[in-house]
Amino acid sequence: MMSSSAEENHAHRADQPLRFQYCRPDFLALSPDEVECSTDHISRPILILKDAKLPWATGYAEVINAGKSALNEDQACCEVVELRKRPEDHSSSGYTPTSRRRSSLPSADILETIDNPEHKELNFHYWGLFDGHGGSGAAVFASKFLHLHVEEQLQEVLEILQNPSLQPPTCLGEEPTLHHLHPVAGCSQRGLSRAASLRGAAGAPGSPNTMTPRFFMEKKIKQESLVVGAIENAFKEMDAHIGRERGMYSISGGCTALVVIYLLGKLYVANAGDSRALIIRAGEIITMSNPFTPESERQRLQFLAHLQPSLLGNDFTHLEFPRRVTKKEVGKRMLYRDFTMNGWAYKTVQEEDLKYPLIYGEGKKARVLATIGISRCLGDHDLKVHDSDISIKPFLSCSPEVKVYDLSQGERSADDVVVLATDGLWDVLSNEEVAEAIAGFLGNCDPDDQHRQVDLYTMTAQDLVMRARGVLKERGWRIAGDRPGSGDDISVFIIPLMHSSSNEAEAS
Amino acid sequence: MMSSSAEENHAHRADQPLRFQYCRPDFLALSPDEVECSTDHISRPILILKDAKLPWATGYAEVINAGKSALNEDQACCEVVELRKRPEDHSSSGYTPTSRRRSSLPSADILETIDNPEHKELNFHYWGLFDGHGGSGAAVFASKFLHLHVEEQLQEVLEILQNPSLQPPTCLGEEPTLHHLHPVAGCSQRGLSRAASLRGAAGAPGSPNTMTPRFFMEKKIKQESLVVGAIENAFKEMDAHIGRERGMYSISGGCTALVVIYLLGKLYVANAGDSRALIIRAGEIITMSNPFTPESERQRLQFLAHLQPSLLGNDFTHLEFPRRVTKKEVGKRMLYRDFTMNGWAYKTVQEEDLKYPLIYGEGKKARVLATIGISRCLGDHDLKVHDSDISIKPFLSCSPEVKVYDLSQGERSADDVVVLATDGLWDVLSNEEVAEAIAGFLGNCDPDDQHRQVDLYTMTAQDLVMRARGVLKERGWRIAGDRPGSGDDISVFIIPLMHSSSNEAEAS
Repeated sequence: MMSSSAEENHAHRADQPLRFQYCRPDFLALSPDEVECSTDHISRPILILKDAKLPWATGYAEVINAGKSALNEDQACCEVVELRKRPEDHSSSGYTPTSRRRSSLPSADILETIDNPEHKELNFHYWGLFDGHGGSGAAVFASKFLHLHVEEQLQEVLEILQNPSLQPPTCLGEEPTLHHLHPVAGCSQRGLSRAASLRGAAGAPGSPNTMTPRFFMEKKIKQESLVVGAIENAFKEMDAHIGRERGMYSISGGCTALVVIYLLGKLYVANAGDSRALIIRAGEIITMSNPFTPESERQRLQFLAHLQPSLLGNDFTHLEFPRRVTKKEVGKRMLYRDFTMNGWAYKTVQEEDLKYPLIYGEGKKARVLATIGISRCLGDHDLKVHDSDISIKPFLSCSPEVKVYDLSQGERSADDVVVLATDGLWDVLSNEEVAEAIAGFLGNCDPDDQHRQVDLYTMTAQDLVMRARGVLKERGWRIAGDRPGSGDDISVFIIPLMHSSSNEAEAS
Repeated sequence: MMSSSAEENHAHRADQPLRFQYCRPDFLALSPDEVECSTDHISRPILILKDAKLPWATGYAEVINAGKSALNEDQACCEVVELRKRPEDHSSSGYTPTSRRRSSLPSADILETIDNPEHKELNFHYWGLFDGHGGSGAAVFASKFLHLHVEEQLQEVLEILQNPSLQPPTCLGEEPTLHHLHPVAGCSQRGLSRAASLRGAAGAPGSPNTMTPRFFMEKKIKQESLVVGAIENAFKEMDAHIGRERGMYSISGGCTALVVIYLLGKLYVANAGDSRALIIRAGEIITMSNPFTPESERQRLQFLAHLQPSLLGNDFTHLEFPRRVTKKEVGKRMLYRDFTMNGWAYKTVQEEDLKYPLIYGEGKKARVLATIGISRCLGDHDLKVHDSDISIKPFLSCSPEVKVYDLSQGERSADDVVVLATDGLWDVLSNEEVAEAIAGFLGNCDPDDQHRQVDLYTMTAQDLVMRARGVLKERGWRIAGDRPGSGDDISVFIIPLMHSSSNEAEAS
């Protein structure tokens, strides 16, 4: 985590050049004029994928917000990334997130691979949605680089992944040795061995300094766990990358990241923020992401503030109250909860409870340190509480939660899809409404008409964006049931699962 | 959390008197001779509820371990506790876990209530299981007092609970005021107001020091949340109570706590440790507790150690490796994960990775700091790593997870029960096996035979203990399928849900 002094060193300067111009996703292939037109907050044109075809006939549509920011702060990326064996490079050592084998990631370098037929290849498919805040810089930057960080991390374990039957070796460069995977005989679960089954007595397993291991065990790590670890570290690298480059360039704000990776028959859904991924398969809705918000991560944030109160300056309290405490309530008993509690209890209000709460507000209005409405994202290295020196960054996690879904099991029909969308969609439509809308569109599809299918998934995405944006009436944007439409940026990927089968043989 | 200096002050002394003699649960009403007989590690007699009748015709059975400790370290408690309005006492102030309105809890005092018919009464039903380690002291102590701490906490909110239609007031002693529960008009979700929908820009809602609140909101707290908060704080008080009394008495070890409370039509299941509660209703199995172990709480424990590395002394590392790292592996790349990761990745091994891992081992063998196999429990204030000054206590949470189940909905049959059991049962029997065994017993029951039912639930508990202990063969205790039986202490409550209806009118 960033120390505040490090942040000062890298403070954002208005005279820094932009790292990337504002843009829309590459695959939309918009002209500068079209980009300009897309920012019309009054008409809010829905942009869809046109000539370009995305892998798996993925559909995509987006719309800009109704005025909350000048530009569309959502970004998207879709790529098929090739993993190839690289020449050996043992120059790295040490463990810090930045001391990778290659420490910087100019994209031209990454894409330069060794064209040697002897080296086995492996592809991964990648879809990413980034929802920016406080500017579009971080979202644009992450959309250009996160898949390359994933590539770099997966590259390190490529040889292991290429042998699906191989259990990942605990230590590289050693001959695999046979370890007892479970305690040696005599320490069975029956508990006849006193030491083995004691749960709490000090000294039972011996001191870490002096003990001879009583049983020698080794965890079996699955290949899948290497992919999850690679994605987790890629997010950390992405965040550190933004942190480094903001010393030279202007990279404004931060962004959520929701990523789907398809590799060797499995979908990996990684989420840091409040975008959402659903799998809809045979009519069933499978939630593939949890939102990370001030409310959902309240206890983690309060725990951190409890352990390191200096992060709150003198302005905030880590306790939660149902509303702001007023001066005249000092001495009275008021509802509160701390990091250990899910319920509420009364405590006697003291002077220091008058401080602003670390977490405040409900639902979409909930904020960390009165500033930010999400608890996991990339960027925001310089974000501070308004008029204060209190950094937000220590509270923001850039680590995603990664869920895995095995696509190799069962039948897949043309109606089975992954839906990825930023919170602009989910704020106004429920999972069920989205699933029904998709079923409605895809139900009319001729599964043998390949060309039509390609359009269809984009049309489905467009339909969802339309349903969430609504139409402009006197009282603003309205959707079905005369509910308010979403005034936020909205971006939607529809990824048909049927098409993954044609890529199964990617490990040649 | 305890500081190590505070622990030294309260170091356990062999010359301290016992707070309570070793005993079995009161409701078993055993003679000293019977207590003595129950500790036979060879025959392992199964003790059952005999003459006494427990509320709701609850069944109970237990058995001692096969030799892992001299005494049965499980304890149990079942009580109906009366809540009555008390005379006003406003002497307290301040917020610390120990500055309650009444700071000590001699049980005679607690049970002395004011016999005034004007004061409304409210009962709660209480079942508790405590699985001790490192001695039976903490488990016995908690079995005597935890329900009284729950009573004390609920007492504070009694008047609110007695008016089920009343929303708990945010501040006591104030006239209820009307607050806007949602932002005032103009800050709608449509995002037309720029400030209201910005997610990350500093200053959006204004500085906590200078801002006039842009929208005034107040969380609605449910009555149920007050009960949850009371139970959570009762566990904390119980732990602090053990911490205080160990200055005068010998209170050995620590214990898990699994508690069921029935109040006003709802079951509250609070768990700190690895005992387990299931509801079996209409053949469906509902898990009412999650286990808190070094593995299930790995990330919380690693996060704490990462933030406060001094807690690890010089002996431990917060990183996890699949096995111990050896000196010859320094410089090689080895699998690891840190507190942010669920997957695994390779890192270059450094000298400091040779330290013993904070979390080590798998399943029942997993340990925190090479010492303890659970991550939440009561007691253990003086527990240290063997031959070291490193305290375990800072890593142990005494906060339970509380799950709520509404019993007022739907039909209840004689087959619907809550099963509570210590890990001795669940180590060898799956949830499904337990549910099947119970269904087998109860299927033969005549629901109109009240007397038979009472015995039946204890017989069901006895049957479960028998199935988990098994029978003694040449190769030790064996259960169905010639699997090893549990060598641990086993304690089982079977709580029939049908009987809760007869207590619905408890709020007179």
